[in-house]
Amino acid sequence: MYSRIGGMALKKVNIGLLGLGNIGTGTYKALEMNKGLIAKNAGAELEITRILEKDVDRERGIYVDPAKFTQNPEDIFSDPEISIVIELLGGIEPATSFMLSALNAGKHVVTANKAALAENYEVLTEAAAKNGVSIKFEASVGGGIPLIEAITSSLTANEFTEVLGILNGTTNYILTKMSTDNASYETALKEAQAQGFAEADPTADVEGHDVANKLSILLSLVFGERVKPDAIPTTGITGVTKEQIEEAKAQGCVLKLIASAFKDSEGLHYFIQPTMLNQDHPLAGVNNEFNAIFIKGNAVGDIMLYGKGAGPLPTASAVLGDVISIAKRSL
Amino acid sequence: MYSRIGGMALKKVNIGLLGLGNIGTGTYKALEMNKGLIAKNAGAELEITRILEKDVDRERGIYVDPAKFTQNPEDIFSDPEISIVIELLGGIEPATSFMLSALNAGKHVVTANKAALAENYEVLTEAAAKNGVSIKFEASVGGGIPLIEAITSSLTANEFTEVLGILNGTTNYILTKMSTDNASYETALKEAQAQGFAEADPTADVEGHDVANKLSILLSLVFGERVKPDAIPTTGITGVTKEQIEEAKAQGCVLKLIASAFKDSEGLHYFIQPTMLNQDHPLAGVNNEFNAIFIKGNAVGDIMLYGKGAGPLPTASAVLGDVISIAKRSL
Repeated sequence: MYSRIGGMALKKVNIGLLGLGNIGTGTYKALEMNKGLIAKNAGAELEITRILEKDVDRERGIYVDPAKFTQNPEDIFSDPEISIVIELLGGIEPATSFMLSALNAGKHVVTANKAALAENYEVLTEAAAKNGVSIKFEASVGGGIPLIEAITSSLTANEFTEVLGILNGTTNYILTKMSTDNASYETALKEAQAQGFAEADPTADVEGHDVANKLSILLSLVFGERVKPDAIPTTGITGVTKEQIEEAKAQGCVLKLIASAFKDSEGLHYFIQPTMLNQDHPLAGVNNEFNAIFIKGNAVGDIMLYGKGAGPLPTASAVLGDVISIAKRSL
Repeated sequence: MYSRIGGMALKKVNIGLLGLGNIGTGTYKALEMNKGLIAKNAGAELEITRILEKDVDRERGIYVDPAKFTQNPEDIFSDPEISIVIELLGGIEPATSFMLSALNAGKHVVTANKAALAENYEVLTEAAAKNGVSIKFEASVGGGIPLIEAITSSLTANEFTEVLGILNGTTNYILTKMSTDNASYETALKEAQAQGFAEADPTADVEGHDVANKLSILLSLVFGERVKPDAIPTTGITGVTKEQIEEAKAQGCVLKLIASAFKDSEGLHYFIQPTMLNQDHPLAGVNNEFNAIFIKGNAVGDIMLYGKGAGPLPTASAVLGDVISIAKRSL
């Protein structure tokens, strides 16, 4: 289908969106906000034409044509006009089943869903390969930071030897506050909740489960090793004390929740734990809600990529980057 | 042409290399070092089959079959078996003419040549488009840092509003030494020369000309504006004094040579000059020979990408990343 922008005939790419929560709304907004630019970069006019979402009436600060809403996912998978499905439901199920249905229907899938990917990486990537379509997931690790593209494209001439990541904004915000304000864990957590950087139930973040999902995905991409998140030794930050923060400072270090993976002669090692970083390490200056990944390649040496690891618009940047890439290369 | 690795039939991609100096040698070495991995990622066995280079006998620490050398570039452009030409001669000419000859012969071009790109960006990109081939140049700005891929792929859903870069390792090394060792400019320059981070004639680096080439390329990519390097207001670091470094410290800042570009209601602004950065700015911790780029997008917010901006192997990482991408997508 072709429409016309600025005198140039552009193909039209219809998108089905699963989930219009915070991230879904951010993605819808970002696509509206940068519509012309995105059309130019994608070589296609992108439109979200169907949305799987129960809550039609919620105030989202955007206008969405009510006719786009459906509560039946088959309306999206069986729509021959839809070539890309964006999955932003979160959680392992029904998200995994929905993504498989979309892939088996010959649709490309873009997702931000780290839990579903960490649990079902092979099933999802194999379904994409079998159907000759892509599954892309830049937003699943590090939010808006273009790290998956870097690992799977620009840096592919390297053998990677080490990855260190600050991959959770909630815990990094709490540890930063504990350090700069000399606050207790409890006080810093309350501050993070008040600022919108921690959820009412912060368990998945502060116990490190969120980071374990992300490290699991990185182990697949960087080292080609499938390790499920519950097999990654993980210590969160709930046991971190003011005294430990002070001790780190006294040693010229900062305490960060670090996801680590490295290869040595004994094989691949991986774990997540609060870690003292020397002040001159590139990750030591990554503060507040920011995320970063530090990666060593045998040609490139040390690389660090830094940015916002969460939030509707940074996540939308990654989701739409994947969509543009598919529209440009595969449609 | 097909050969076989590990039981899998792989297509073979022949490459012509223009220049076997430091960067060319690093590229040849990195391709040998990671041959199997690169073949897997490219879906092709890559081989440099012809090399334009006068100095056949120089000791390079690698074995190169003497039959690969030629002193006639036409041997490469007219070779129907060669599909990619890597240009690592440096300088505007004859590099630009050679790249145009390669593109017009229907060959993809990968280059690290910032001077030729900054001077002849339209001519080169238009020749690639006209011939239906790619010209890729990740290595031309920020060496091994995957910043061009990020700007032209992962982050393309963003309107960019600002770019700040530390884009020259020599000047960053000198300014870092002046700051940490309380050294004069002259002393720090000598130290940089002794460490191999500055050339015997450091003019192009210390006067900012090298950075101007890189900012010119970024202005094209990030803002779609063609500005030749000599039209960018540029102040190098030769006038920086110990007193200015101390004054920056006293104000809680560090002095860095920053390439800046930003858009406001009056249009696009760009300049290169020694700049005081607050200690908490992500670029403030970028020290010694490292480079970094800081970029603001209207969806993603602040992004920083950090790594080695020069050197044979980091540059080879970017060059070969481009080659792999072409082999995977276009051959």
